[in-house]
Amino acid sequence: MAQALVLEEKGKLSIRNIDLPSTVGDNDVKIKIRNVGICGSDVHYYTHGKIGPFIVNQPMVLGHEASGIVIETGKNVENLKVGDRVCMEPGIPNPHSRATKLGIYNVDPDVVFWATPPVHGCLTETVVHPAAFTFKLPDNVSFEEGAFVEPLAIGVQAAVKARLKPGDICLVTGCGPIGILTALAALASGASKVFISDLAQPKLDIAKQYHGIIPINLKNESVEERVKAECGKDWGADVVFEASGHPSAYDTVLACVRPGGTIVFVGMPVDKIPFDLVTAQAKEIHMETIFRYAHVYDRTINLIASGKIDIKPLISGVYPFSKSIEAFERAASAQPTDVKLQIEMPE
Amino acid sequence: MAQALVLEEKGKLSIRNIDLPSTVGDNDVKIKIRNVGICGSDVHYYTHGKIGPFIVNQPMVLGHEASGIVIETGKNVENLKVGDRVCMEPGIPNPHSRATKLGIYNVDPDVVFWATPPVHGCLTETVVHPAAFTFKLPDNVSFEEGAFVEPLAIGVQAAVKARLKPGDICLVTGCGPIGILTALAALASGASKVFISDLAQPKLDIAKQYHGIIPINLKNESVEERVKAECGKDWGADVVFEASGHPSAYDTVLACVRPGGTIVFVGMPVDKIPFDLVTAQAKEIHMETIFRYAHVYDRTINLIASGKIDIKPLISGVYPFSKSIEAFERAASAQPTDVKLQIEMPE
Amino acid sequence: MAQALVLEEKGKLSIRNIDLPSTVGDNDVKIKIRNVGICGSDVHYYTHGKIGPFIVNQPMVLGHEASGIVIETGKNVENLKVGDRVCMEPGIPNPHSRATKLGIYNVDPDVVFWATPPVHGCLTETVVHPAAFTFKLPDNVSFEEGAFVEPLAIGVQAAVKARLKPGDICLVTGCGPIGILTALAALASGASKVFISDLAQPKLDIAKQYHGIIPINLKNESVEERVKAECGKDWGADVVFEASGHPSAYDTVLACVRPGGTIVFVGMPVDKIPFDLVTAQAKEIHMETIFRYAHVYDRTINLIASGKIDIKPLISGVYPFSKSIEAFERAASAQPTDVKLQIEMPE
Amino acid sequence: MAQALVLEEKGKLSIRNIDLPSTVGDNDVKIKIRNVGICGSDVHYYTHGKIGPFIVNQPMVLGHEASGIVIETGKNVENLKVGDRVCMEPGIPNPHSRATKLGIYNVDPDVVFWATPPVHGCLTETVVHPAAFTFKLPDNVSFEEGAFVEPLAIGVQAAVKARLKPGDICLVTGCGPIGILTALAALASGASKVFISDLAQPKLDIAKQYHGIIPINLKNESVEERVKAECGKDWGADVVFEASGHPSAYDTVLACVRPGGTIVFVGMPVDKIPFDLVTAQAKEIHMETIFRYAHVYDRTINLIASGKIDIKPLISGVYPFSKSIEAFERAASAQPTDVKLQIEMPE
Repeated sequence: MAQALVLEEKGKLSIRNIDLPSTVGDNDVKIKIRNVGICGSDVHYYTHGKIGPFIVNQPMVLGHEASGIVIETGKNVENLKVGDRVCMEPGIPNPHSRATKLGIYNVDPDVVFWATPPVHGCLTETVVHPAAFTFKLPDNVSFEEGAFVEPLAIGVQAAVKARLKPGDICLVTGCGPIGILTALAALASGASKVFISDLAQPKLDIAKQYHGIIPINLKNESVEERVKAECGKDWGADVVFEASGHPSAYDTVLACVRPGGTIVFVGMPVDKIPFDLVTAQAKEIHMETIFRYAHVYDRTINLIASGKIDIKPLISGVYPFSKSIEAFERAASAQPTDVKLQIEMPE
Repeated sequence: MAQALVLEEKGKLSIRNIDLPSTVGDNDVKIKIRNVGICGSDVHYYTHGKIGPFIVNQPMVLGHEASGIVIETGKNVENLKVGDRVCMEPGIPNPHSRATKLGIYNVDPDVVFWATPPVHGCLTETVVHPAAFTFKLPDNVSFEEGAFVEPLAIGVQAAVKARLKPGDICLVTGCGPIGILTALAALASGASKVFISDLAQPKLDIAKQYHGIIPINLKNESVEERVKAECGKDWGADVVFEASGHPSAYDTVLACVRPGGTIVFVGMPVDKIPFDLVTAQAKEIHMETIFRYAHVYDRTINLIASGKIDIKPLISGVYPFSKSIEAFERAASAQPTDVKLQIEMPE
Repeated sequence: MAQALVLEEKGKLSIRNIDLPSTVGDNDVKIKIRNVGICGSDVHYYTHGKIGPFIVNQPMVLGHEASGIVIETGKNVENLKVGDRVCMEPGIPNPHSRATKLGIYNVDPDVVFWATPPVHGCLTETVVHPAAFTFKLPDNVSFEEGAFVEPLAIGVQAAVKARLKPGDICLVTGCGPIGILTALAALASGASKVFISDLAQPKLDIAKQYHGIIPINLKNESVEERVKAECGKDWGADVVFEASGHPSAYDTVLACVRPGGTIVFVGMPVDKIPFDLVTAQAKEIHMETIFRYAHVYDRTINLIASGKIDIKPLISGVYPFSKSIEAFERAASAQPTDVKLQIEMPE
Repeated sequence: MAQALVLEEKGKLSIRNIDLPSTVGDNDVKIKIRNVGICGSDVHYYTHGKIGPFIVNQPMVLGHEASGIVIETGKNVENLKVGDRVCMEPGIPNPHSRATKLGIYNVDPDVVFWATPPVHGCLTETVVHPAAFTFKLPDNVSFEEGAFVEPLAIGVQAAVKARLKPGDICLVTGCGPIGILTALAALASGASKVFISDLAQPKLDIAKQYHGIIPINLKNESVEERVKAECGKDWGADVVFEASGHPSAYDTVLACVRPGGTIVFVGMPVDKIPFDLVTAQAKEIHMETIFRYAHVYDRTINLIASGKIDIKPLISGVYPFSKSIEAFERAASAQPTDVKLQIEMPE
């Protein structure tokens, strides 16, 4: 029995004891949780009770962005020891599946992912996790930063898929948390300049504090004109990351990408999108999609530790576990100046 | 002045004399035309007078799929000599443009392409063409096959973009000429098996004569079920080529491609397509588009010369130039058993 | 206890009973062995007692190229059932290692490989093997062909690494078994023409029987001149596969590859090679190495089943298990006309 | 007639008038030269009179790293205008060659390159150059930095070829100018940490001032041990750049690269290298070579303009044109603390 933040049903959270698995397998570690970020998906389960086919039918512990300390190791574990400060990939694939064998474990249909019904999340005292999906934090990476590795990993996955070349000029459409993190990952991956567009000036103001990110407020100017003023009228951005999921963005990304360029679809739209395929064809565009991430946790930690990405300005608030319901209520209120709220478990 | 097949205006063809450029530049060759294939686009200009933004406002010579014999060479030309049997890439880029310098000359916005208004095509006695876009035919490749290089090059471009690996299992949706040629290019590029789907049994019967192509008639069976029976229920085709442009095909390609697989969009839809992006994301699909071709003419000739692709069964009829209007009328009638009609210029 | 072909020590083989592991784990299958190919490495252990750091210090069962029939399945196994005809990847990686997680399990330092001291091979009655490394054979692939998947997989790995494009012109230096299999894999992967060079005419005569393979006898002509006559004097082969390991070959491959082309190093030289790096740099050559194979067994089976690669002409002899020592003696005598000898276990 | 720095013969420089081409073609611009960097190759022609097959048989103007101001434009030129501050790619390919058409113009055998005998360089008052190989400098990039684009482009080419992923850990062997520039390019392209090794502490001290570059003095510690302490004993650097050309480096790069990693060979050794191919094969290493650069000038300018690469600390001295012989004498004396000397033409 352990204390946890439990989503009892749509709209109802409680902090209470719950029975969770605690057996440490030979290739597992047990981790005392420290910081847990609140993700849009956690909030969506809280406010809507479901995401697509995933429905909360029974009480579920929330949270999947976590850091902590190793307190026990399985007998085969060599890469970690008790006392190591760590963060964890929240998805565990079937090690024998076709996708996992190929190295694309993130698209293994059998993957088990924290806080995706009916799987419990990590907003609790301790978790048991495979050592292969648990990563040591360097001394200069804090628990707050460790819990930020998960959302940043999505941006890094987008940057990896984009196969960025040094000096690329990029556009990110959508300046929400994932849009900003994608812009930062692109800059750290070789982009020399990243335009980011949105309607909400407070969000753009947050992005603007980073050198190399250039905000475009859709209310005031045309994204296409701004990008072409930079890149040439018959040309465009080398890589465009769509991070809004908004139906209107798909014409923009097609208009702004250069001939032979790349679009990475990061944002997940609610419905089918109306897509102007012929425009993509006339420029012979390459398009990538991402689903979570694979093989980027160590990379993401390296980028934070080296100072190439500074996510500290994006931590908008840290709540003690005892006030985690309050934290969720603030998250649910969607303040445009809040990028990431975290919950800190007791030491 | 030379004899040519001229599209005077929508719906009106004539064989008549017309004044065409005939100066051979230092890097050019002059070619006596032999065989010219009739493309869907030629027919479309004939029947509709336009394709998208390209409108026939003045008389235009048709034809862009051609073979012939070199009859004159510019003073810098080293790779060709008088008497060489050749075929020609119909698009000529600006050699100083950004796209051309990058090697992606097919997406150069300044490209000049035969029989795309207002540029004249090659259904005439002789043409002047850059030597760099003129390719020698080996002795065992006929003029008919030489004029078939252009449409086959589209299939080869699709196969190149797909980055096929040996033993891949593929699906082509749409069994028109480009669908069949794409299937043949995929087989020649390492695919071990290519499913091809359509509603028209006569088209599937033509495809079926090739070892390795497996027809699926949409009227009788589910493409998805057929592909999954082959590849596994949680899996799918490694590469899917969409070659129909039909709105209903886009759900099919997403359902049939495997996690981490590739979709190449070859067919050009009339309108925006309704696209289920989230399904693509959940499998982390790569998507490629093609626009004509670049750097594949020599490859395509090699594949024909080596016997790896036999396009002879796809030549449905060859008309003398004097009967070329008749040939266009047959093409316009869209017989399902006609894959390619050609016109042969007098020797 | 089971009958096996045991290498007791350097130069001494016996057929005798030996105690081998027989417990079928949850993710394993037990296979009754049918055909086993004799590899150069098996022969080398027999004649020299070691390969590099791998030394035969205790009796070891030989053989790693095998086909058979599933006779038992572990409780988690879903992709195979009793009675399935199969072949097996002989290397088993650590599923929790960094390399395996990345999908490059062939370079996992912990890999356990059949008939590599001190690990026993498969020249015995039954083996227990992970289902994930056991592959079902289609009905039209024989046990002889099934046992041929292992060596052909090396050629397919080379072709995959080469990232061949359709219509490529290739050169293979060295016409031993691996050279021929690499040439066949290249042809099946899109190459339109493959030159293969060697000093031994009988080996070239075997290769020559395949359409698309063009033998070059080094005694009679210059490989470089032959390739440049085909490809142009300032140009060369798109991809060169070095499959001899002979020190003299490295100048040849550099001379024959085109600017911007690819060299794949398949053959393993005995000593360090003298390598003209500046010549490689002046052409900005890509170079790939291969180590065994990963993710190509299913591809290789597909290529055999589809008829794209016919390895039957390369099976030089099949011996009953009772005569397996005789088979090894013939293999050790290195007849130039022997490509592959196999041993057939009793039904 | 124009003033120029002329290498009359081995060991003899003079500043004098010389007759140089001055006709501005339709696609050309004329540039008044401002800054010119002194390259190791300039010095080598001065001190040795030749580099490999390139021999100084007649007086030749030196210099190929230049910035300047456009003073005249050909009639087709659209991307540049009089008064633009620019830098120039020193190699001009044949626009009609096979390599150029493919986009790999740097390996065009017909390329004409400044200050490579018998072609004159740019250490003179004005040059005529193709607009397609002339690049506008942003306002915040100085003429000194503009003249530094050429050597930095080599590092950027190496980083592009390496296909770096964000968070990669790299090693550069050799801390000369190209080694340092390669390290900076790698950092700007996503590397989180770059080790650089050399015997000369003054060179390492220069590199060390950059955050993210970690010097290793070969006299004091083992490169292999240092890299493995960072990356794990069975692992290694993701990408190793060899930038010394020294025969002893090739064992080091093989020992330090991780399984499945990449080596980029930047340094050009004097003789054939002894290369342990089997070690490369056992890790299935991917290897790239570079020859100058292609398509990276705009990228390199972007990286300087954005502040991602600061090359100002590497400019060790700027001499007026009147003292350019003195500058060459200093360069020939090879001070370990001199990274780059430049010559400034009169305004």
